[in-house]
Amino acid sequence: MAKAKSNILNKIYYPSDLKKLEEFDLLQVSDELRQFIIDAVSTNPGHFGASLGVVELSVALHYVFNTPYDQIIWDVGHQAYGHKILTGRRENFHTNRKYNGVSGFPKPFESEYDSFGVGHSSTSISAALGMAMASKLKNEKNRNVVAVIGDGSMTGGMAFEAMNHAGMLKPNMLVILNDNNMAIDPNVGALKEYLVDITTSQTYNRVKDEVWRFLGRVNKLGPNAQAFVQKIDNGIKSIVLRQSNLFEALNFRYFGPVDGHDVVNLAKILKDLKDIPGPKLLHVLTTKGKGFEQAEKNQTLWHAPGLFDKETGQRIKLNGVKKSPPRYQDVFGNTLVELAEKNEKIVGVTPAMPSGCSLNIMMEKMPTRAFDVGIAEQHAVTFSAGMAKQGMIPFCNIYSTFMQRAYDQVIHDVAIQNLNVVLCLDRGGLVGEDGATHHGAYDMAYMRIIPNIIVSAPMDEIELRNLMFTAQIENKGPFVIRYPRGNGVFVDWQKPFEEISIGKGRKISDGNEIAILSIGHVGNTVVEVVHKLKDKGYSICHFDMRFVKPIDEAILHTVFDSFDKVITIEDGCISGGFGSAVIEFMVENSYHAKIKRLGISDKFVEHGTVEQLQTECGYDLDGIEKAIVEMLGNRKIVESDKNQKSKIKEIVHH
Amino acid sequence: MAKAKSNILNKIYYPSDLKKLEEFDLLQVSDELRQFIIDAVSTNPGHFGASLGVVELSVALHYVFNTPYDQIIWDVGHQAYGHKILTGRRENFHTNRKYNGVSGFPKPFESEYDSFGVGHSSTSISAALGMAMASKLKNEKNRNVVAVIGDGSMTGGMAFEAMNHAGMLKPNMLVILNDNNMAIDPNVGALKEYLVDITTSQTYNRVKDEVWRFLGRVNKLGPNAQAFVQKIDNGIKSIVLRQSNLFEALNFRYFGPVDGHDVVNLAKILKDLKDIPGPKLLHVLTTKGKGFEQAEKNQTLWHAPGLFDKETGQRIKLNGVKKSPPRYQDVFGNTLVELAEKNEKIVGVTPAMPSGCSLNIMMEKMPTRAFDVGIAEQHAVTFSAGMAKQGMIPFCNIYSTFMQRAYDQVIHDVAIQNLNVVLCLDRGGLVGEDGATHHGAYDMAYMRIIPNIIVSAPMDEIELRNLMFTAQIENKGPFVIRYPRGNGVFVDWQKPFEEISIGKGRKISDGNEIAILSIGHVGNTVVEVVHKLKDKGYSICHFDMRFVKPIDEAILHTVFDSFDKVITIEDGCISGGFGSAVIEFMVENSYHAKIKRLGISDKFVEHGTVEQLQTECGYDLDGIEKAIVEMLGNRKIVESDKNQKSKIKEIVHH
Repeated sequence: MAKAKSNILNKIYYPSDLKKLEEFDLLQVSDELRQFIIDAVSTNPGHFGASLGVVELSVALHYVFNTPYDQIIWDVGHQAYGHKILTGRRENFHTNRKYNGVSGFPKPFESEYDSFGVGHSSTSISAALGMAMASKLKNEKNRNVVAVIGDGSMTGGMAFEAMNHAGMLKPNMLVILNDNNMAIDPNVGALKEYLVDITTSQTYNRVKDEVWRFLGRVNKLGPNAQAFVQKIDNGIKSIVLRQSNLFEALNFRYFGPVDGHDVVNLAKILKDLKDIPGPKLLHVLTTKGKGFEQAEKNQTLWHAPGLFDKETGQRIKLNGVKKSPPRYQDVFGNTLVELAEKNEKIVGVTPAMPSGCSLNIMMEKMPTRAFDVGIAEQHAVTFSAGMAKQGMIPFCNIYSTFMQRAYDQVIHDVAIQNLNVVLCLDRGGLVGEDGATHHGAYDMAYMRIIPNIIVSAPMDEIELRNLMFTAQIENKGPFVIRYPRGNGVFVDWQKPFEEISIGKGRKISDGNEIAILSIGHVGNTVVEVVHKLKDKGYSICHFDMRFVKPIDEAILHTVFDSFDKVITIEDGCISGGFGSAVIEFMVENSYHAKIKRLGISDKFVEHGTVEQLQTECGYDLDGIEKAIVEMLGNRKIVESDKNQKSKIKEIVHH
Repeated sequence: MAKAKSNILNKIYYPSDLKKLEEFDLLQVSDELRQFIIDAVSTNPGHFGASLGVVELSVALHYVFNTPYDQIIWDVGHQAYGHKILTGRRENFHTNRKYNGVSGFPKPFESEYDSFGVGHSSTSISAALGMAMASKLKNEKNRNVVAVIGDGSMTGGMAFEAMNHAGMLKPNMLVILNDNNMAIDPNVGALKEYLVDITTSQTYNRVKDEVWRFLGRVNKLGPNAQAFVQKIDNGIKSIVLRQSNLFEALNFRYFGPVDGHDVVNLAKILKDLKDIPGPKLLHVLTTKGKGFEQAEKNQTLWHAPGLFDKETGQRIKLNGVKKSPPRYQDVFGNTLVELAEKNEKIVGVTPAMPSGCSLNIMMEKMPTRAFDVGIAEQHAVTFSAGMAKQGMIPFCNIYSTFMQRAYDQVIHDVAIQNLNVVLCLDRGGLVGEDGATHHGAYDMAYMRIIPNIIVSAPMDEIELRNLMFTAQIENKGPFVIRYPRGNGVFVDWQKPFEEISIGKGRKISDGNEIAILSIGHVGNTVVEVVHKLKDKGYSICHFDMRFVKPIDEAILHTVFDSFDKVITIEDGCISGGFGSAVIEFMVENSYHAKIKRLGISDKFVEHGTVEQLQTECGYDLDGIEKAIVEMLGNRKIVESDKNQKSKIKEIVHH
């Protein structure tokens, strides 16, 4: 560390300050930037390993390129902390990922240095190509465009689509392949093997060996063959390596691999590359978590580690004492194994999120039946459809926000063929600190319009288990189970399975003034509100609908026969969502009730805690209470009815 | 042709009949199959060139493989006519693409020989990999899986995702790369150049030349260098070609290229490949339209030529005499050029559909400003977003059904950043003969739930022009313009541009008994019905809403203030669609009206003429009339009011 020397980073507000330094100063800047990130993330949790890995790259890029005129696009964006700190946000960085604070991802509305909004992977080359072509059309000859993309993101199909197109248009652009051999989980696929291959030059070595052997045989025909080989060697190397390169095949000039932690050399190479026309790819080798021992050793865990002690590397667990309800993802992961042990048709599929969705549990116990397909949502769904066509029952787990990537495959490959693929959408609803790009806001709305599909959302982890159990009994066709990020509500959740009738909800509490129809986990907030308002003398009937599609028409008939005031609540977009399905039913059946729909209104919700965002959207505890009171009018507080209360509890925990 | 010999094809009902033949008989079978397809498609229009190109491949595959136990997946599927004819559907093939007839695409519900439903491109390798892994898990050792994919489809990102995954899992599977250097339009991208390169062995030649030159220099150091080179040559060739191969880089064993029209050789190679384990790629060179001169020469035109004279190759134009209204796609194509001539920020983008969406007009007139990005919807949208970020105004034209492929990119790259990308969705609504995989049924529903976005649908080509004009004035953010396949309604359509107020509809005809709210082209059917029913004494108020989002609230207030009976009509899914937006407004504003929503109900609609399908869905002329009459009750016929009629006409053609 550079504590003895005077701090340089403190004087860097913008890249213009960085550019004033000598090249050798970049070493100290890198050290200080790394320490700054460690300090910041240890006390204010965020993504960690990715940004540590590109510290030197961030410094070198801003040292060499004329940002923000030159444009750097950070694929996925959680690697961009160093970039943010160097571009006007150092002093504000303690607000990273906090409500109204700095975003955890590049965001053009936040800074002109954030050239393009990112969050989902594999978009950077497309965006960079668009920018490069725009520059070409506008005749901006000296503007550089750089896409920084990880080897994991490179497996996403659209990255390949963009390379294919760029290799035809051939504009000036630089793709930096940040090869750390990791996405959130260890990277998979033939491409990974290929990158390792060219890195260790085994391709070249293999070729060389074969040439050697060949020349050995040729030896009989002439005296000096083996002697030649030494000389031929270098010639062959450059030719073969160039020709054997996947990226060269797509018309990108390939450079590298180079050490991504040698900042001075990086700066030199980037300077050289600026002057080389056409599409170029620089292969940079980095270590995720570089400079923080624990993060280097366990990269998956330290992708986003939460709070930790920056001296000892001890991760600080909150709520560690009391036994708390499990995370939904773990309920999924463990339940899938439980089911798969009994039903050999079950397989698991995830696009690069095994630890995020807990499919890693199955991958460990049943490695032949659990598939991490790489960052490849489209493929994940159609691969699952292929297995389902052959009689398997794939549980394909994709975060709700990433399922948007495979929408066509759900319609075209799964639903039209009515295949029994179970689509488990983790992170449905507001996800909190990751913000606008990551909320799973639209899934219920875009899924329910697809024919043949079942769309469900459990209110708690027991329902999640039972829905999963139900989805693998007989051929049910396409079956969506959507659940949130975070924890369930029961400590004791591993109950025996019960089949749930498709399209059947349940009554949680009885009442006669107003009906609340909730879908999913947010129903637990409703339970709290109902208890509170019962004490105030309100009589509220609450249904957990469980299914968006087919919707429980029996419950809806009962509701619209008995109530003229109805509130629907969902942790998803109001427009076209679950509440919309309810009013479609009402209008079709000529009922008239006053309906208030709570959920995410028609705007992009930024980052913050889930609680803050739910408050903003008006469906936290207070928001729901307010909506009910507004419909029913204020009441005086009355004595609570304890019998009533315990009775409700019984129903909830059935 | 083989007319002199006895016909063999007539005796082939299933592949089992084909397998009884000698290898040399396959020549005659291929000839007869080709002629059968020419006969069939000349009188009953369908896809043409693609199936002619794979006649020999279809014959060889079914000769060698044990279908349907072995599974062949025909990417996109419009190349599968030969396959269909050889697998139980020869006698029914005259019903191809007709209502209740044979589907133009492989469809498992139609035949067990159709292993997987296809229609959109680039899905076959994912599906094949899923099937191969299912076979592996089920321990079916002798089951073969074959994906036949065109070089165009290979540019789709999910094909790459699947190759990357297959190259890691390494199951037994065969990918046949049908390289005809054509998608519907000439294929684009670096991959195409690469395929040409390995086909003509220029890669190898270039390497050889460089080695030669290098050895020439080495010559000084030893006497026999040049003599060696002759001997080295073959050794280098095999090594370099293998190493330099893109597919080998992804762990596929590469074979080829081979002549795709030599059926006997194809059969031999396929037999050999059956016994080679692991993932394999066979590169087959074919000519699209093979065996029909005009189709070979103009492959784009003969992709799906309509009726033609099979002797002369003359295409038969219907309605050729009367001047008819233009196709919507041509209005788009010509209008875009008109606008781009005045506004230099405008660029055009299409994923491999320049002739289908008429962007080819701009590509010809302004080649630097119009981009065909290949079969790559995801990239098309984010590439557009990148250009928009730099101040350009991209008109990105994608068929509605294919826009499902870029849903995430619309949300994540365009809408969140509020970029001024104009998304032109051609083929919105029922498309007719292409059937379930191709109807643009869901676009209005899945688009309107996205924040920041404007969603419009013109009722006629003048509105299309004016919406396009409007979309490029100032920065309007994301702007969807959705229009159908087929023709508009005006012969004289090239009127001066008029800006349309965002979110403003228009009244087409006045009345006081019922309000009809239509969106898009189907409004013209409503006009006809209204005229007809006026004569019968009904008083109908008709609005062309123009915008699904923002919806015209002024009109809706007027409607719900004045009418208790409302019908909404859209050429799209009822669930969550335009009508759903109308009832959302109604309920939010506490109006009560009886509403009937017409559109595509919650099922997949098969193939047939657009008219037949609209009838089936209940929003053709009779269906709309019936819905109105059911709401208002039957009337006696009264004298028509001619003044009234001409007045309405005036409003429509304003």
